Amino acid sequence: MYELKLSLPKWIDSFLNDHPNVIHDPEKQVRFVLDLTERNILEKTGGPFGSAVFEVDSGKLVSVGVNVVVQQNCSAAHAEMMALMLAQKKLSHFNLGAKHFPNHRLVTSGRMCAMCLGNVCWSGIKEVFSSAEPEDVEGITGFDEGPTPQDYNSQLEDRGIKIVTKILRSEGRAILQLYVDHGGQIYNGTR
Amino acid sequence: MYELKLSLPKWIDSFLNDHPNVIHDPEKQVRFVLDLTERNILEKTGGPFGSAVFEVDSGKLVSVGVNVVVQQNCSAAHAEMMALMLAQKKLSHFNLGAKHFPNHRLVTSGRMCAMCLGNVCWSGIKEVFSSAEPEDVEGITGFDEGPTPQDYNSQLEDRGIKIVTKILRSEGRAILQLYVDHGGQIYNGTR
Repeated sequence: MYELKLSLPKWIDSFLNDHPNVIHDPEKQVRFVLDLTERNILEKTGGPFGSAVFEVDSGKLVSVGVNVVVQQNCSAAHAEMMALMLAQKKLSHFNLGAKHFPNHRLVTSGRMCAMCLGNVCWSGIKEVFSSAEPEDVEGITGFDEGPTPQDYNSQLEDRGIKIVTKILRSEGRAILQLYVDHGGQIYNGTR
Repeated sequence: MYELKLSLPKWIDSFLNDHPNVIHDPEKQVRFVLDLTERNILEKTGGPFGSAVFEVDSGKLVSVGVNVVVQQNCSAAHAEMMALMLAQKKLSHFNLGAKHFPNHRLVTSGRMCAMCLGNVCWSGIKEVFSSAEPEDVEGITGFDEGPTPQDYNSQLEDRGIKIVTKILRSEGRAILQLYVDHGGQIYNGTR
């Protein structure tokens, strides 16, 4: 009752072997997380969302995440949450922004839902780069983005977190459509 | 890199042995989570927050959580997140509101931050009962509540989730003060 384990799908290993572990260009970082997302859809291991944490200056890949809510029986197991939690475990610190660390960037296939936005604020992440917009996610898939604030971007900026949105947005939208075309489960049923 | 484990403190075992596992009265449920919170402070195992998931009708305790952010190297390891994730693991389902389950209530020592509010919306929880208010948490401890929306309660109610706040609020405030008096770490440094 007092311990829980969360895992990414088994194919992550081979995926990472087939991709570089240092990526500098932000567009290439977004392509990487969209590839990750596409694989999660094709393998039918979760929802159409992928994320990764990179060191800002070196471009070094620190962690990845995909949505594994259904597979892991955990409504918190969004791609961004998995990537952030795995990065923190890897660095053995709850704060990726601690003084002795390089700056970290979260790159994500779709702008964060309310839960993931909150955790970005707690995680010590310094930059967030995203592809699809909340209205893409809600409009194409029907997933709910949750109780996000009106002043989404300034909530991040006020906490010293840079946000860049709509990177390769049409590709980001196409991935969401791929999920729908494959009959992917829209598991969020509160509305 | 692809698996993570999160645990509650070891004293949880003895705590649960010393308390009933069926509690009907909402005030008594809040007292239970405040006791849990106090223990987390006195044991110095985390921040001043405790939560539990109960079955609404039977009063049966399903899971508990305390804040273990620092101890577990995980900014997402808030009390509410731990309780929700552990309840979902126990029931082997990401949705505590699935048709074949009884209704579930989250009881928490302080009203949820932005992240936990988001996960409540995804979790399938039908009711949230809380003690201290966000301004108590921010005013007494200095912890940031994050990017919550202006229309906090209606965001829940619109999703069919009942929220009852300020239950034993003065006791809830006293627990936050206890943490400060014990020199507890205010680890959230984004502002």
